[in-house]
Amino acid sequence: MLSYPVIALNFKTYLESIGENSVRLAKIAEDVAKEHGITIIVAPPLLDLEKVVKEVEIPVFAQHVDPYKPGSHTGSIIAEDVKAIGAAGSIVNHSEHRLLLADIGMVLERLRENKLISLLCTDTVETTKAGAALGPDMLAIEPPELIGTGIPVSKAKPEVVTGAVEAVKKINPSVHILCGAGISTGDDVAKAIELGTEGVLLASAYVKAKDPKKVLSEMAEAALKAWESRRV
Amino acid sequence: MLSYPVIALNFKTYLESIGENSVRLAKIAEDVAKEHGITIIVAPPLLDLEKVVKEVEIPVFAQHVDPYKPGSHTGSIIAEDVKAIGAAGSIVNHSEHRLLLADIGMVLERLRENKLISLLCTDTVETTKAGAALGPDMLAIEPPELIGTGIPVSKAKPEVVTGAVEAVKKINPSVHILCGAGISTGDDVAKAIELGTEGVLLASAYVKAKDPKKVLSEMAEAALKAWESRRV
Amino acid sequence: MLSYPVIALNFKTYLESIGENSVRLAKIAEDVAKEHGITIIVAPPLLDLEKVVKEVEIPVFAQHVDPYKPGSHTGSIIAEDVKAIGAAGSIVNHSEHRLLLADIGMVLERLRENKLISLLCTDTVETTKAGAALGPDMLAIEPPELIGTGIPVSKAKPEVVTGAVEAVKKINPSVHILCGAGISTGDDVAKAIELGTEGVLLASAYVKAKDPKKVLSEMAEAALKAWESRRV
Amino acid sequence: MLSYPVIALNFKTYLESIGENSVRLAKIAEDVAKEHGITIIVAPPLLDLEKVVKEVEIPVFAQHVDPYKPGSHTGSIIAEDVKAIGAAGSIVNHSEHRLLLADIGMVLERLRENKLISLLCTDTVETTKAGAALGPDMLAIEPPELIGTGIPVSKAKPEVVTGAVEAVKKINPSVHILCGAGISTGDDVAKAIELGTEGVLLASAYVKAKDPKKVLSEMAEAALKAWESRRV
Repeated sequence: MLSYPVIALNFKTYLESIGENSVRLAKIAEDVAKEHGITIIVAPPLLDLEKVVKEVEIPVFAQHVDPYKPGSHTGSIIAEDVKAIGAAGSIVNHSEHRLLLADIGMVLERLRENKLISLLCTDTVETTKAGAALGPDMLAIEPPELIGTGIPVSKAKPEVVTGAVEAVKKINPSVHILCGAGISTGDDVAKAIELGTEGVLLASAYVKAKDPKKVLSEMAEAALKAWESRRV
Repeated sequence: MLSYPVIALNFKTYLESIGENSVRLAKIAEDVAKEHGITIIVAPPLLDLEKVVKEVEIPVFAQHVDPYKPGSHTGSIIAEDVKAIGAAGSIVNHSEHRLLLADIGMVLERLRENKLISLLCTDTVETTKAGAALGPDMLAIEPPELIGTGIPVSKAKPEVVTGAVEAVKKINPSVHILCGAGISTGDDVAKAIELGTEGVLLASAYVKAKDPKKVLSEMAEAALKAWESRRV
Repeated sequence: MLSYPVIALNFKTYLESIGENSVRLAKIAEDVAKEHGITIIVAPPLLDLEKVVKEVEIPVFAQHVDPYKPGSHTGSIIAEDVKAIGAAGSIVNHSEHRLLLADIGMVLERLRENKLISLLCTDTVETTKAGAALGPDMLAIEPPELIGTGIPVSKAKPEVVTGAVEAVKKINPSVHILCGAGISTGDDVAKAIELGTEGVLLASAYVKAKDPKKVLSEMAEAALKAWESRRV
Repeated sequence: MLSYPVIALNFKTYLESIGENSVRLAKIAEDVAKEHGITIIVAPPLLDLEKVVKEVEIPVFAQHVDPYKPGSHTGSIIAEDVKAIGAAGSIVNHSEHRLLLADIGMVLERLRENKLISLLCTDTVETTKAGAALGPDMLAIEPPELIGTGIPVSKAKPEVVTGAVEAVKKINPSVHILCGAGISTGDDVAKAIELGTEGVLLASAYVKAKDPKKVLSEMAEAALKAWESRRV
């Protein structure tokens, strides 16, 4: 099981994150995780997933998994294969890869069957309630209109974050809740944790940073400090 | 507001239900509703929706609505137009027209804004929990593998029905729960209500019946009788 | 069969085109068609299709048809029903309702079987070649980036229009070719015909016009004049 | 450039083809290719693609590529990444991963830009015409109803194969045409080539064979023999 707080890094499929860059970015994340003693998850492009798994010891997630069992499917991502290559879990229903409600149910089941950790993305307080009811391991609320903007959800829409935190507590308190969209600095991460989340999901602020290590180290520090304050 | 129990008839798009047949089937349903004093909802093909609305006084539903506001959309079904032509509500996320989780949230909002009644379909106890959290007016659980088989969910998978009933009670007791798939006789309807539902959703057993009036009358009678027994 | 040139009006699903507005806009189009002796096609919202068919004598098209035969389909638009309510044809694969290549093949077959006229939309010279090979009755090339901009394809990308015209002539000369996207004035229509098309497909410039009759009359006049010049 | 005839092996995502099995099956294919001097393409599961590329010297294809350029996309397969990990090309629009017509146009462009070979799948003579017009390097016609049946298209529907061969010759003779669906034996392969194709696309007959090497060797031999006869 993972320890919290968590920083989850979605590498997406930028020029800066495909091919060998995926390994480079994952190793930096591993360094920061070790130096600060914090859980950092990396989700490299699917084609680079196994390569990254082999190079780092932090949890590596797929960016997407299909709802199918192994069989006659072409171009699909099968949970059994995610497991076979050694990944730890998967993002589910990212706003850039939305799924049918019925398929989300099946994907979560497929991940559970394969002992893979699920990180479900939702977009509103309403769909967060629905998502929590489905029982993923983690859930990240990301208002899609803020993704990639640098305007952090934790500042622009704090009521969405607190609404989601409350909804999860009420519907299914065993789900760990993160938030995402526009998270760019240590401050944004601190604010997210102060609002009651257990971590953040981000992409471009890390992948496209001039100095990814510096950005991530600040986030790790801010996360741990905010976490500590909350416990007191 | 509707009175319960409810029999919801999805006309789908069979040869027996398109064009003028949609009016014929709706009028029979209206007769049975009046004779038995029971709520019967009809959902004719989209192209025949307005025609049916003009011919009967029972609630007429769209089979599907898109998540969009009025605007630059081609070939879409807009809640404002469903309202404009006088329909009462819409089926949402039928197993033959599955939606993204994010879109279900938006469709339900669009229906609420237009004072239209929502009947959300789900397929498992898990997705029923999620569906209940989204707060539709009605929710029908339909295991897709039983749709059109004549094997009633209320007999083949009673645990799915009772599981869904319990889930809805726990997550959002204001949601009215129906069940569907394989419902063909008065007995099936009675069993569904005995298991705790407030009605049924069916299609081919009515649309393709040799004597639709007879089939529906038996269902209406059985529904009311089972409902009465439950209240005692 | 239709006479050319053709002005095809996609009403989409604007507030200005749903419900009774669809009839109002269709009647204006009918007036212009009769006054100028030109073919004008109207494609009202699906929910308003039958109502419009009953009120005007010009060709009325669906905005979309699904690839299915009548049967167990919910919320779908079936060619047999389009025919049953008296429509003349359908738009296929509009940029706001894109279809799988395999489904386009089936939709065109379904329309042919029901003696309905097909108006296939494509987006590039390459997909226009593919579309022409599928043998629709009409084909409209619409670069999606220009739709709704008021920047006419006939002026902004004349090489796309002439490329499409040549491609259709070479691959399947029996297909009538239109162009669309950004068409707002009589001038735009004239230019489209001068480039070799047999008409235009437009939406907002008509639906959202302060004086739709004036706009459409100018287009009709310009179309006929350009057509006449081409024949000389 | 590839030499013809070609045997293309879609590994799909069977238990027998995911993880390390993908390498095992690819190495057998490489052995057969070298022994017989014939082009054999393998398309392993996406998660296993790079691993296979590193282990064999025959052309390795992705099973699917998305139409996007590198950027803010999650869970997508980007042509630049397919190239970066050393694959030679990609299957496009397989019947288990159908694409929008507009997206097929873009995927083929993305593959061309990255100097990757395209193998486009189509399902009927009509869509084969459309597919040929789009100019892929190779095109495989596969009637979906025969996939996985063991009933070879080359015997069950020879007219579909010859119709496709003629269509391609007429519309775009630079496209190499294969056929697929139900191909299980050397005889099926020979028949496919006798009908005018330049090779076959198959999956389960190889992946699920008790002795894949034997099956593939027979196919290679039959292909070369039929090819030789055709040249005479």
